[in-house]
Amino acid sequence: MHENKALPFGQVTISDQFWAHRRELVRREMIPYQWKALNDELEDTEPSGSIRNFRIAAGLEEGVFYGCVFQDSDVAKWIESAAFSLAYAPDPALEQTLDELIDLIGKAQQPDGYLNTYFIINGLENRFTNLMYQHELYCCGHFIEAAIAYYRVTGKRKLLEIICRYVDCIASQIGPEDGKKHGYPGHEIIEMALVKLSEVTQEARYRTLAEYFIRQRGQEPNYFEQEIAGRNGEFKWRESPFGLQYYQAGMPVTQQTQAQGHAVRAVYLYSGMADIARLTGDENLQKACRTLFENIVRRQMYITGSIGASSYGESFVDDYELPNDTIYGETCAAIGMVFFAYRMLLLENRSEYADVMERILYNGAISGMSLDGKQFFYVNPLEVTPAACRKDWKYHHIKTQRQKWFKCACCPPNLARMVASISEYVYTQRDDRIHMHLYMSNESCFTLSSGQHVKLAVTTDYPWDGKVSIHISQAESPFTLALRIPGWCDTWSVTRNGIPEAADTEDGYALLPDCGNGDELVLNLDMRVRFVRADPRVRQNAGKIAMMRGPVVYCLEEADNGTALWNLLADPREPWTAAWSDMLGGIMRIQGTAWRASDACQEALYSEAPISYTRIQATWVPYYAWANRGEGEMSVWVREKGL
Amino acid sequence: MHENKALPFGQVTISDQFWAHRRELVRREMIPYQWKALNDELEDTEPSGSIRNFRIAAGLEEGVFYGCVFQDSDVAKWIESAAFSLAYAPDPALEQTLDELIDLIGKAQQPDGYLNTYFIINGLENRFTNLMYQHELYCCGHFIEAAIAYYRVTGKRKLLEIICRYVDCIASQIGPEDGKKHGYPGHEIIEMALVKLSEVTQEARYRTLAEYFIRQRGQEPNYFEQEIAGRNGEFKWRESPFGLQYYQAGMPVTQQTQAQGHAVRAVYLYSGMADIARLTGDENLQKACRTLFENIVRRQMYITGSIGASSYGESFVDDYELPNDTIYGETCAAIGMVFFAYRMLLLENRSEYADVMERILYNGAISGMSLDGKQFFYVNPLEVTPAACRKDWKYHHIKTQRQKWFKCACCPPNLARMVASISEYVYTQRDDRIHMHLYMSNESCFTLSSGQHVKLAVTTDYPWDGKVSIHISQAESPFTLALRIPGWCDTWSVTRNGIPEAADTEDGYALLPDCGNGDELVLNLDMRVRFVRADPRVRQNAGKIAMMRGPVVYCLEEADNGTALWNLLADPREPWTAAWSDMLGGIMRIQGTAWRASDACQEALYSEAPISYTRIQATWVPYYAWANRGEGEMSVWVREKGL
Repeated sequence: MHENKALPFGQVTISDQFWAHRRELVRREMIPYQWKALNDELEDTEPSGSIRNFRIAAGLEEGVFYGCVFQDSDVAKWIESAAFSLAYAPDPALEQTLDELIDLIGKAQQPDGYLNTYFIINGLENRFTNLMYQHELYCCGHFIEAAIAYYRVTGKRKLLEIICRYVDCIASQIGPEDGKKHGYPGHEIIEMALVKLSEVTQEARYRTLAEYFIRQRGQEPNYFEQEIAGRNGEFKWRESPFGLQYYQAGMPVTQQTQAQGHAVRAVYLYSGMADIARLTGDENLQKACRTLFENIVRRQMYITGSIGASSYGESFVDDYELPNDTIYGETCAAIGMVFFAYRMLLLENRSEYADVMERILYNGAISGMSLDGKQFFYVNPLEVTPAACRKDWKYHHIKTQRQKWFKCACCPPNLARMVASISEYVYTQRDDRIHMHLYMSNESCFTLSSGQHVKLAVTTDYPWDGKVSIHISQAESPFTLALRIPGWCDTWSVTRNGIPEAADTEDGYALLPDCGNGDELVLNLDMRVRFVRADPRVRQNAGKIAMMRGPVVYCLEEADNGTALWNLLADPREPWTAAWSDMLGGIMRIQGTAWRASDACQEALYSEAPISYTRIQATWVPYYAWANRGEGEMSVWVREKGL
Repeated sequence: MHENKALPFGQVTISDQFWAHRRELVRREMIPYQWKALNDELEDTEPSGSIRNFRIAAGLEEGVFYGCVFQDSDVAKWIESAAFSLAYAPDPALEQTLDELIDLIGKAQQPDGYLNTYFIINGLENRFTNLMYQHELYCCGHFIEAAIAYYRVTGKRKLLEIICRYVDCIASQIGPEDGKKHGYPGHEIIEMALVKLSEVTQEARYRTLAEYFIRQRGQEPNYFEQEIAGRNGEFKWRESPFGLQYYQAGMPVTQQTQAQGHAVRAVYLYSGMADIARLTGDENLQKACRTLFENIVRRQMYITGSIGASSYGESFVDDYELPNDTIYGETCAAIGMVFFAYRMLLLENRSEYADVMERILYNGAISGMSLDGKQFFYVNPLEVTPAACRKDWKYHHIKTQRQKWFKCACCPPNLARMVASISEYVYTQRDDRIHMHLYMSNESCFTLSSGQHVKLAVTTDYPWDGKVSIHISQAESPFTLALRIPGWCDTWSVTRNGIPEAADTEDGYALLPDCGNGDELVLNLDMRVRFVRADPRVRQNAGKIAMMRGPVVYCLEEADNGTALWNLLADPREPWTAAWSDMLGGIMRIQGTAWRASDACQEALYSEAPISYTRIQATWVPYYAWANRGEGEMSVWVREKGL
């Protein structure tokens, strides 16, 4: 069977400037900071209460549960990022902290395996009674992922065993059998976590439970409607545009054709669906995954890869509804979309999936953290006018500056685990073909189907430079290297040992067969400045263009271009110069001539007077780096001159 | 003393096609319909409960108070419109209904004069304890205006006497004296109503109370802060951008320089301020009025005359914050702005005030009613995409079709009283000079300072035609006619008895001295199609133009131009043809060549592919007439071609 496979953990060693720097920020800044946050040791921020909740649940301390009902998940996400960081930066003290934390978690676990501090503290009689609103299965999903990461990195099984006991407890209560609740989580994630758990433990029952959660979702009689009826009909989203689709539970998943409802929940579900679709070969489920993926990417995704257009319910809105200023674009949703895209890539090796991963990773995901790794965005707007954000309530959710921490602190730890595990997304392998999806400097080892080994050493200044050099060593037998030709790139070339090679492409990958020991491959991707337009059905971007170079989306900031960015016009036909700058942590800065409407005050608010335009020098910087120079306006889309 | 004076009631008889039709709709449709609504005789709409509340308060029926705390005001507004309608269409049956209603109101009045059904029914011990949230003084203000209208039209004093007793009751509880509450209304209107009451009754104490409410507002110690402290600090707007400025009570009114907070409350307050500024000659108050008026008109008013940019608190947002799609633009706020502008005109005869009245009346006010007078908008957007309104919660307040009635039914009766009293706004008089502010066919009588009389007969097809003919008769002595030259008009001429006259202008009015018996004056205003741009600080309109002809703002509707109006571009340099059409109740329709971006589907949501534009025929219709042909897109602003 020809399967796309993820690489066993630890096979890819990232040495890339761009990503190694960020992984270092995770290790040096985020993990210690978040540990303090979880322990309520930060001043000037909302307390977390999460570790204390575990101490109370373990009987080590008196007190009441504090925080959101899903507060446990912050602990799990922290464990996961810390575990990943140990893989690239061993740290015995951190490992000891983790071991002690895992001991504490074990002490909080109930005799039957149950493990959620909210219900342990507030009364176990209510557990599993409100799968829709409460987050028991969600928190469990995060703990599964944390346990797997820690096991993979350290080989220690304790947390894995704790969590398997918890899953078994869940499976004793929820499932298809008579006498069990025929439910599923209100906030998905456990589906994809259980698939991983099944792979790690080789226990099929976890995958079976994941499949049950997916297939049971939205079936009649509707479990959530039953829960609602049991709560006297109280249902927060009844009058909303979503109804039960807020939870992607208004119909069976195979009937869902548009991404709807809460964006993070949606893409976490679709990720689990893609896993099950791949493992079962179920064509209906595969089709549903493709349809939903296409719906998002072709109709509901921002150019930065962000998803979720509305703050109301942190939700998808509708096809082509992509407001740049009132967007939600939660960092977690972008990360979830990477999970989905990566799983689609495992399902079928098509470059469009990797294109989406890349679009998100270099733009709408890392925009969630400051360049010093100390502050975070939950919401990632594409157009910001700070004065308006202070005055107009529809921008209430928009922060113009990254924050130190959040009361609902889902995004920073999610970003930490994503960055810390970036190596997972670089390659997949099918038989003797190695697919390289993301371009970053790394050294990696592969085992071919013959059992023989290959080592690749990749060096590149991506995303700033389009040259990717690949040195092959220890290749005991020939293999095929498949290099993604990004969707944004229309001019590229490959050389092998200095000789141009006319590589065939398949599903968006340049195929380089018969790679062998000592081969030096060089991929050159054209990195010209590109101006991109949105589909004309996106009314918010009508008459506007956005600048990209390579995978990087650019923006205009007030720091470079002054205020009233809406009065700027850019002409794609002008020459634009990209040059290295040490500003903003080191970027390719793009400059050229643009036009600015005169903001000379008219006496009247409305008049026939024409508006004059003057030529100016405009500066574009990468979107991900915005808001690192104080508060100011920002815009990704700019009016196109000459229409 | 040279004072600008409103004309005594009943002096102006409107015969205008445009307005007479609407006044007839008020009489024939709105007043009977609203009477049914007040009596809960409508099916398929929210009950009103207002008349029943009075019956319960009068002890004629058992029951609980129903509706908003300001439900009484709907009764008052209905009385006022019905009274005005009797002036132009006598109706003994309606007058009898009014008399019976007034009897009922009299029965509900308490021995000490108190008259608010909410507190009469729910407990008088709580009256005047929550001036900020409750609407006792607001309802009283509306009843004062109703009583004055009914008295002016019929000469009947009963309601006037009832309401004077209520005001005296209020004045016994609230005022500057020791032992009284040093408060003022949370929702203004009583200020301007008391000024009128003082004029009608010649009782100075009502004007004194109005002045107290205005001057005490926002003074330290802040009365509302004291009320809030008495409610354990509970204050809905504490975390909002407004604070107490939601009520225009965060500082003394003479210190207020930006229109802030709830838009209707704001302009009702400013109307009262303008009255007191005029009557007292207080220069600080006059300056505050001018500053606030200018702030609105030059920075916070839509091209349609609508005000109040945000649904959050139905409020002003900030200078130049004028979103066309998420606008509130409440019909009542537009009406209130007419009150303010008219009072500024009484303060000083400058055409800019009348320009604002005209802008509102022909656009953002009458857009609030359907062409058949049966359905109403509370919110008046300038850009509507129905599909988005159903899906994006930020448009939750936007209705794409006018509604029959509202739970909070302030707007339809407010519009009824405005339209029914349109004759009030046509002229003012100063000594022997008659100022004509609005152009509509009418016959009117004036008494000059000498005591001699003048009669004017005006005929015009305004706003469709710029010719205004004025026949003077019964002029016993010469006088000056001052004709407003609208701010939108740069080419105009006047003839007297067929001979061109080079009239001087003063403060925006063409002066025609020595007008005498038999004179035939003709004013010609150029009615070319104009494309208007917004101040470049309005980011929502950057690169866009709006079409106007005369005072009428035009819009594009889906019914004429298809969907995706954001893909249209118009070039002001193209020829545009205005021609009469019987559609939409009879309008000048404007047509010409525009461009439309191809909406050919691209496979990718973002691409470098240029968008092609094709020439199309575009049709503009008056904004006020939008949404009379089923649901569809609409936009006032369109992208300007050639930038």
